[in-house]
Amino acid sequence: MAQRRRRERQIVIDIQTEPQPSDLGDVRVTNRAVVLRHVRRHAPCSRADIAAHTGLNKATVSSLVTELIDRRLLRETGLTENRVGRPATMLVLDGEPYAALGMEIGADELVVVAVDLGGNRLLTWRRAFAAPLAAPAETVRALATLARRAINRVNGQGRTILGLTVGVPGLVDTAGTVPLATALGWRDVPVATALRAALRDPDFTIAVDTDANLAVVAEQRHGVYAGTADLVHLTGGATVGAGVLTGGRPLRGARGFAGEVGHVPVDPAGPVCECGRRGCLTALVALPAVVRRLLPDVEVDGPVTDWLPELERVQTLARQEDPGVLAGLAEIGTHLGHGVSILANLLNPQVVTMGGHFAVLAPWLLPAARAELHARALAPAAGGCQLVASRLGATATALGGATVALATVESGRLPVS
Amino acid sequence: MAQRRRRERQIVIDIQTEPQPSDLGDVRVTNRAVVLRHVRRHAPCSRADIAAHTGLNKATVSSLVTELIDRRLLRETGLTENRVGRPATMLVLDGEPYAALGMEIGADELVVVAVDLGGNRLLTWRRAFAAPLAAPAETVRALATLARRAINRVNGQGRTILGLTVGVPGLVDTAGTVPLATALGWRDVPVATALRAALRDPDFTIAVDTDANLAVVAEQRHGVYAGTADLVHLTGGATVGAGVLTGGRPLRGARGFAGEVGHVPVDPAGPVCECGRRGCLTALVALPAVVRRLLPDVEVDGPVTDWLPELERVQTLARQEDPGVLAGLAEIGTHLGHGVSILANLLNPQVVTMGGHFAVLAPWLLPAARAELHARALAPAAGGCQLVASRLGATATALGGATVALATVESGRLPVS
Repeated sequence: MAQRRRRERQIVIDIQTEPQPSDLGDVRVTNRAVVLRHVRRHAPCSRADIAAHTGLNKATVSSLVTELIDRRLLRETGLTENRVGRPATMLVLDGEPYAALGMEIGADELVVVAVDLGGNRLLTWRRAFAAPLAAPAETVRALATLARRAINRVNGQGRTILGLTVGVPGLVDTAGTVPLATALGWRDVPVATALRAALRDPDFTIAVDTDANLAVVAEQRHGVYAGTADLVHLTGGATVGAGVLTGGRPLRGARGFAGEVGHVPVDPAGPVCECGRRGCLTALVALPAVVRRLLPDVEVDGPVTDWLPELERVQTLARQEDPGVLAGLAEIGTHLGHGVSILANLLNPQVVTMGGHFAVLAPWLLPAARAELHARALAPAAGGCQLVASRLGATATALGGATVALATVESGRLPVS
Repeated sequence: MAQRRRRERQIVIDIQTEPQPSDLGDVRVTNRAVVLRHVRRHAPCSRADIAAHTGLNKATVSSLVTELIDRRLLRETGLTENRVGRPATMLVLDGEPYAALGMEIGADELVVVAVDLGGNRLLTWRRAFAAPLAAPAETVRALATLARRAINRVNGQGRTILGLTVGVPGLVDTAGTVPLATALGWRDVPVATALRAALRDPDFTIAVDTDANLAVVAEQRHGVYAGTADLVHLTGGATVGAGVLTGGRPLRGARGFAGEVGHVPVDPAGPVCECGRRGCLTALVALPAVVRRLLPDVEVDGPVTDWLPELERVQTLARQEDPGVLAGLAEIGTHLGHGVSILANLLNPQVVTMGGHFAVLAPWLLPAARAELHARALAPAAGGCQLVASRLGATATALGGATVALATVESGRLPVS
């Protein structure tokens, strides 16, 4: 039996990651994470439920639960389970004393989301702000102002903030600096350092990541395909990028620059991209390219700030079955499918979700995009890759940022008292 | 200090992978792996060295070492360390009683490599075999014959085989079946099952993976850039594929089909590929395309079986600075750099190694390939990506297969007695 199991298991090696010596402290951290995860998914549940489903023994569960109640990460509901034998007290996530923040710098707005430990939204604020027209320092100041308001609100509820993560539409290195964000006109902006200084060095983690990397975390936790281990999210809007989870882990690459599908060449004869190259995916399917292609009367040479009216006009024309707009959307869908086929060949995801204007225009883009994906991907049936519209809307990146900021506690480490 | 550290650490979340309850058995497995790894890298070393460098306490190290000596995974050398105080007995990997096998089905040969626990080669055999001209069942029979000879040789040395991993130039699913291998003319060949049956159900793991996935493991362990966490290996030969390690882990995707860079379109006006599409990277830079482009007098319409004479002729002409051949190699290098730029944009590797004919022709391909990589990658300096020739030669895939087959023991699990 053991041999049979050994045979069927796929061998997964992890050559690089140095195995770390393990001690009883690590065991407790791991088991704390297991208990928190179980309660998050199955609350309300009893100590006995946790023991039965996790394989941990009852004494261990009892000790961990006592500690987690003490630190106000769990609480007893007062309810008891209706069953034979001694009634069991039911547990839920408390998280009352804690919150995490996520923010986004978009091409036309700043966003902040706060969530509690269970991932429930405490606040979602959007503020119109044309970052491409502002100096980077001005944008960081506006971001800090919005952050301070959210911090004050959350602190005023008696909650401790566990962390803040900001999403940016561009390259972000591991120190939280943005070497390049064409959609914002940025080069070498040290966002994490500047925001930390503007917030006067607060006692929580401040991290910066690409908008796509945070949005895929939101999809993985809150989206229609939540729980998918091999998941890619394609951001739509002023620019196009991919956030990639592979085997449940974020794909970052050596310097944090992975997922730049927006500047893969798709049509060598296509238009010149904002990056200076010709025929990039971004130059063919990002929102400015879509408006330029479908609404030739609109002036789109300036910076993209607020595209909602144009996007709504495209939707209206598509609903009215305007032949030019329908043909244009099919063409854009084909380019999009071409880009997704490259993701499918290289990453073999189970699901690719599309956000931004791709989600809004999905009814007209998807048929052509899926056909092109299947025609171009090498593996049979595109390796099982499903291409779908996201349903998380415009605040997915900020929601993902807040989710990431919960990671320390979710991994079983106790918050700083 | 703790806060400072918390700030500087990059947040890495692992949302999908369910945290598993941990117990003392797991701790022992982890610590066993730590001890084995330390000895593999720093042998000869004493118990005290291990304790000092791993952070494990001396009693734990002593108990683990006793067990590992007992199972003949470590042995005492008889040497002692020349130092103040009580002399310490030095330890090395034993591995005498164990071996692992790796094999490759290439377009023109079968390869088998056996290594001991320290990764030292025990045997390397290559047998000319034109798999594209044979039926899949015939190829598996030839593979099994070669495997049996290697197994007998290794068993005859008194060694127990820990596992066997076979590399195939095509798609391989998680069950070890090959849905598609254009270079071999295969569709839906259940290699793992067929080989297991042909070897009469031996008492060790038999796994199948793509040639590229195994070659990148060999690079990571034995190559010039050994130890690189974000590493891509590009196979050259009858076909082109990528094996990807990201954060030290193999990138596989949902069904095991990740890394198919060979069929990403590079030139829409290029030649028709063996997969039926036009302008794939394979159709421009794989060995048949290179021979077709550089030696127009050679007939390359049949299956590729033994291309060494042609490859040597290309080298000779390049050394003689034949202008047509040099221009052709620069053009091929440009296409190659284009393909690598897509890998750089999506995966942001630190190093891309090139094997097969790319390594042989590297002096003439690399300048153009590197220039194109830097021109096309979005991140400054191509995100730090270095493009280099592999030095592992033609048996890298089989060596990687043997390395993978050691994984169970290296992860701290004891071999089946």
